[in-house]
Amino acid sequence: MATVPLIPDADAEADAAVQTVFDDIRQTRGTDFINNFWRALAADPPLLTATWTRLKGVMGPGALDPLTKELIYVAVSTANGCSYCVHSHTAAARAKGMTPQQHGEFLAVLAMAMQTNSLATALQVPVDPAFEA
Amino acid sequence: MATVPLIPDADAEADAAVQTVFDDIRQTRGTDFINNFWRALAADPPLLTATWTRLKGVMGPGALDPLTKELIYVAVSTANGCSYCVHSHTAAARAKGMTPQQHGEFLAVLAMAMQTNSLATALQVPVDPAFEA
Amino acid sequence: MATVPLIPDADAEADAAVQTVFDDIRQTRGTDFINNFWRALAADPPLLTATWTRLKGVMGPGALDPLTKELIYVAVSTANGCSYCVHSHTAAARAKGMTPQQHGEFLAVLAMAMQTNSLATALQVPVDPAFEA
Amino acid sequence: MATVPLIPDADAEADAAVQTVFDDIRQTRGTDFINNFWRALAADPPLLTATWTRLKGVMGPGALDPLTKELIYVAVSTANGCSYCVHSHTAAARAKGMTPQQHGEFLAVLAMAMQTNSLATALQVPVDPAFEA
Amino acid sequence: MATVPLIPDADAEADAAVQTVFDDIRQTRGTDFINNFWRALAADPPLLTATWTRLKGVMGPGALDPLTKELIYVAVSTANGCSYCVHSHTAAARAKGMTPQQHGEFLAVLAMAMQTNSLATALQVPVDPAFEA
Amino acid sequence: MATVPLIPDADAEADAAVQTVFDDIRQTRGTDFINNFWRALAADPPLLTATWTRLKGVMGPGALDPLTKELIYVAVSTANGCSYCVHSHTAAARAKGMTPQQHGEFLAVLAMAMQTNSLATALQVPVDPAFEA
Repeated sequence: MATVPLIPDADAEADAAVQTVFDDIRQTRGTDFINNFWRALAADPPLLTATWTRLKGVMGPGALDPLTKELIYVAVSTANGCSYCVHSHTAAARAKGMTPQQHGEFLAVLAMAMQTNSLATALQVPVDPAFEA
Repeated sequence: MATVPLIPDADAEADAAVQTVFDDIRQTRGTDFINNFWRALAADPPLLTATWTRLKGVMGPGALDPLTKELIYVAVSTANGCSYCVHSHTAAARAKGMTPQQHGEFLAVLAMAMQTNSLATALQVPVDPAFEA
Repeated sequence: MATVPLIPDADAEADAAVQTVFDDIRQTRGTDFINNFWRALAADPPLLTATWTRLKGVMGPGALDPLTKELIYVAVSTANGCSYCVHSHTAAARAKGMTPQQHGEFLAVLAMAMQTNSLATALQVPVDPAFEA
Repeated sequence: MATVPLIPDADAEADAAVQTVFDDIRQTRGTDFINNFWRALAADPPLLTATWTRLKGVMGPGALDPLTKELIYVAVSTANGCSYCVHSHTAAARAKGMTPQQHGEFLAVLAMAMQTNSLATALQVPVDPAFEA
Repeated sequence: MATVPLIPDADAEADAAVQTVFDDIRQTRGTDFINNFWRALAADPPLLTATWTRLKGVMGPGALDPLTKELIYVAVSTANGCSYCVHSHTAAARAKGMTPQQHGEFLAVLAMAMQTNSLATALQVPVDPAFEA
Repeated sequence: MATVPLIPDADAEADAAVQTVFDDIRQTRGTDFINNFWRALAADPPLLTATWTRLKGVMGPGALDPLTKELIYVAVSTANGCSYCVHSHTAAARAKGMTPQQHGEFLAVLAMAMQTNSLATALQVPVDPAFEA
């Protein structure tokens, strides 16, 4: 259960801002499917609009390839313990071509980072001057 | 200051396990420089050996390119708030070819993930059945 | 499922310390309802007593208004990924008058903080001397 | 030290996008002071512009009072362990009228949330149906 | 639902590396039961092997007693909000002799650490020179 | 720098509540040294009193030995990225007899937990019914 109602299509039609975002999600992704995240955010139309607009720009074409962006997203979502986000962005990574070998290697890097993060913090290692920008 | 002493080269020479790892770090990276993380870990030689051996394997050639692995590493390190790790792996990403444009785009994806993670968690959005593996 | 049994009213009656806390929760909140958090904590009566006593004092009348306190609580709970706490304190915020507009604005501030937190950490921005107390 | 250079005013003048944001920060806040966060973000002008524009909107007048927004910000920043953010937003809270009594009470709520978050998670307390939206 | 399939025994038999790990888990623990974590990791046999081999060594006999190791594990898992890990390692702690009194005291220490962590961070307390190693 | 002033002994004498806590810290620990955490908390005497009183009780004699409690404390502090807390409780663990071997083994368990936490979360492993309390 969510802490807000999930807006169904019928209610989206009643709010121009929500309808505009739902239409753009469908057009951008080439599917009629709107996942629950956007239906929950639609409880607050200005937040829905701001979040979708920014996401569309950030995850669109740029200097990093689309799969790399999804892997960064899954990494952050895992560290933050966001179950929904792990599910949705792992599915997105697969849709963007992630192979089982790449998934396994991603998990290995993730687990490696988690453990050396904890060691560097527990040991309070001072930053080497060589790393200065 | 660290919570353990940072082992200088002179002390490393006195412990065969530490010396072996330090030699391998130098050979693998093609530099004489040993950063503080390994000098701190050297306070416990078995942990040093296990961590370096695993890291060398995980971050070596594989199904993901080296820069992607470093970006995943920086993403996790940021979410965990590990200052040392952010510095060392941002430097590593630059050494592996990260351009300022890629850095900026990485930061945008990272910040996007952080905000949608918090929204999905605050809204307690239920996972869509469509995301099931 | 919880990692400890949830203590039902019948068992609470058998332990004076638990019964005292359950009675006080009911009287303080003006309802017969005891939520699962307290029924789980009742597995350890001293911890139940210490936690309830402190919570009652901290969340009672003071220098901050009750809704502000609940919003701080939901913010921390979200950052920590505590599903139970997000649910219970979002419900509490509504009970204390949170409007949908305030909820939406709260979510926007939360998401904003998450993203600038990650940017400040990834950029390792040095603290400005002007912020010193 | 930051992982990117902090852009001084002289360099900001050379980039129209950066100069526009710096000018707007100064005008909005009524001070000539630009804190380091923005000077670091200026390494990537599009990210600087997007972040400032959104922050200005989110933290501006709305359904929640300015001090409440800053307290939510400090709460999230503390849970995320962002030292820079804790400093800058504690200073902002003071500038918006936070009294020592309010600061002490904020800290008490924050610490309370942290402890009950951990207890609910360690006990894996199931969400009460009564909390459903 | 997991983001990868959980490998049943029939499929494990078809992969020598997975079968070897599953056999070793059964022999080491003296039970036929293989919990879901290993069945999920089996989707990537090299990661399964590396993780099990390291876990077996780290959690085996050493300078800390087995129960202490499990309590450290539950503490980290709680702070990271890992529901699966809290369940599995709380069960393991009980199997290794944790009494209800010890569980209650563990929870009290955990909650205490969470609250003073947040206070030290929110107050940005400078490290005392006396704590230097 | 802290976000509040650190209260020196001269100012503590002027506030009966602060003086009482400082006296009790000195008597309980058998040393004249008051570390910065308490001098920062003294900015809010009621919070200082509540925190010290609870800490003294929780960390005192009980069902878990003193060193185990400190290790749990360092584990949580590391996961939360609290630099001050890692320093102060690693020092406390040493004062309570932690050997270098125990420290190394603690770090290995900590790093192990961090990595399996991330794997269980990234894989979204369902909890085995066998773990139900």
